Amino acid sequence: MKTTFFTPGPAALFPTVEGHYQEAFRLHLGSISHRSSTFRKIYQHTAEQLRILFNLPSSHAILFTGSATEIWERILMNTVEHESFHLVNGSFSKKFYDFSKELHKYANAQHKPFGEGFDASEVEVPEYAELICCTANETSSGVQMRAAEIHKLKKSNKTKFVAVDMVSSAPYPNLDYSLVDSAFFSVQKSFGLPAGLGVWFANEAMLEKSERMKKHEGIVGTYHSLPSLWENYLKFETPETPNVIAIYVLGKVAEDFNRIGVDVMRKETDKKAKLIYDFARKSDQFEIFVEEESHRSATVAVLNCKELAGQVIERVKAKSGMVIGAGYGKMKETQIRIANFPAVDLEQVEALLHNLA
Amino acid sequence: MKTTFFTPGPAALFPTVEGHYQEAFRLHLGSISHRSSTFRKIYQHTAEQLRILFNLPSSHAILFTGSATEIWERILMNTVEHESFHLVNGSFSKKFYDFSKELHKYANAQHKPFGEGFDASEVEVPEYAELICCTANETSSGVQMRAAEIHKLKKSNKTKFVAVDMVSSAPYPNLDYSLVDSAFFSVQKSFGLPAGLGVWFANEAMLEKSERMKKHEGIVGTYHSLPSLWENYLKFETPETPNVIAIYVLGKVAEDFNRIGVDVMRKETDKKAKLIYDFARKSDQFEIFVEEESHRSATVAVLNCKELAGQVIERVKAKSGMVIGAGYGKMKETQIRIANFPAVDLEQVEALLHNLA
Repeated sequence: MKTTFFTPGPAALFPTVEGHYQEAFRLHLGSISHRSSTFRKIYQHTAEQLRILFNLPSSHAILFTGSATEIWERILMNTVEHESFHLVNGSFSKKFYDFSKELHKYANAQHKPFGEGFDASEVEVPEYAELICCTANETSSGVQMRAAEIHKLKKSNKTKFVAVDMVSSAPYPNLDYSLVDSAFFSVQKSFGLPAGLGVWFANEAMLEKSERMKKHEGIVGTYHSLPSLWENYLKFETPETPNVIAIYVLGKVAEDFNRIGVDVMRKETDKKAKLIYDFARKSDQFEIFVEEESHRSATVAVLNCKELAGQVIERVKAKSGMVIGAGYGKMKETQIRIANFPAVDLEQVEALLHNLA
Repeated sequence: MKTTFFTPGPAALFPTVEGHYQEAFRLHLGSISHRSSTFRKIYQHTAEQLRILFNLPSSHAILFTGSATEIWERILMNTVEHESFHLVNGSFSKKFYDFSKELHKYANAQHKPFGEGFDASEVEVPEYAELICCTANETSSGVQMRAAEIHKLKKSNKTKFVAVDMVSSAPYPNLDYSLVDSAFFSVQKSFGLPAGLGVWFANEAMLEKSERMKKHEGIVGTYHSLPSLWENYLKFETPETPNVIAIYVLGKVAEDFNRIGVDVMRKETDKKAKLIYDFARKSDQFEIFVEEESHRSATVAVLNCKELAGQVIERVKAKSGMVIGAGYGKMKETQIRIANFPAVDLEQVEALLHNLA
């Protein structure tokens, strides 16, 4: 029986990924120097494909780290001198907030109960906050913050940076990068790659801030400080020996995505999400967790279960080889999470719902 | 024509690596959760195999980062409150030293010219240094610091931490971990894996220091602070979603190494190194760069060339498909570097020397 992953990350591999890995081995990409023109061309290609996919202007650099978790730390170290502000409504947005405290920043937060989301109108940004941290998709609770709301937040806080954690939704959110200063994701979610690479978009204003902080005796880190990453990026290099093969495969998958077209992919995501939520609405076994429709994630659907989540997961797996995720943390026994990433198509979602019924 | 890499990193893949990657895909390791028992078993297996290979006692944790470069930063942030001390004799030991300054530590250094090495007797450790940073193998210059000398350094500085950068030599240096507090490497050198994973051994005394620093308002980082890495390690987990497949493949390669036996591997390395240096000694085209025999690296041989290094490299590549490294930085045109890692066997080294002659 074929195994299909509907887990919210690490997730199903995008169908082309294994082939791209084989090609990477054939091209000896595990042995080439990261200071070679071969590597620089790979970085450049990946950056170009991501620029097309995200409609990312040249004001933003495309930088690579070990994980999106690392980017939480780097962004705080490099752009927050004193105060950050976090919209916290789940385990991952809370971790971002906790990182700021651990780095001895003055961390402000506005909290929402698990399963609820934010609209711009209700957000009160503290006067001295330098960075506003939003989560486009809370993987733990299946709550999204819509791009339009994130844009409004920037429009009413023009002097502050806005950073968007889009770990479990990119490239779904259609962000306007004339308003979004920074956004980031990791490759093991929607892009369907094995884990081990974080992707960070940051703009020139952030670079300038980091350079200023560094000049004024601030500690912005070493090899992965924004100035160091950026200086290397200008040559399409990285400060350290990076995960070369993952950078190559990410470029190839982004190319595959561009061939489909990001608008088509977004529509496909909406269509599959609607199927899942419609199924839950009609079911007497499941219930949609996120009540407010506009906050309901398109890429990670969270459903309350009548029976124990573990039993549902086991039954579906035994019957069909399909693996769905358990609820996050305390919700482990009462919720399931279904990833609706590009790696699973409409037919597979239909088959899953058939097996869940 | 088959391509064989004698480059000092990224380097030739160990012959079993591609097969292990294929198996990783077959096992869906790109999709499994890093909070699952499957992942914990992988981490445990890799740790067990590394413990055997390095004869590493239980006082030391085995931790994973994105790169060895990252470990330079983490070790300084987590174990140096005020002062570090660096033995600097090449580009990589200098970077470690520079990181300390960038982190606003008081960084002390003893310098040697490029191509020279350190013996314990000539090292003068500053009174208030908390951490002594040694480089077991300077990849840039082909200079080693012998394990016995590193051990002596600790014996005469018992209250200070000793950290060993063994990036381009592990598992060759036979370190005594009752004396070495920390050692680290990355997987794209001697282990012959694609890049994207750093491996950090650190002992309990370092953990205690980091916890103490954190308690006294020190900034030791967030997810990759020593306390956070260690807490997760106790469950065989990682703070972030790590490079799961690389951790798996590293365990498999360590198992392959253990099957050969580390003593056999070290003897094999010595034998191949002797061939390379004997060749250079007799050659009128090449000259051994490192004059002092006891400082000559067993794993990265650096040779001065009569003709332009680029021409030598091109000729050998065109003739045999064998790729050797150029000298590092300023030595790019006058030196070649030959990696003598386990991935290339005696016959391949002999063939290379035949082609170089």
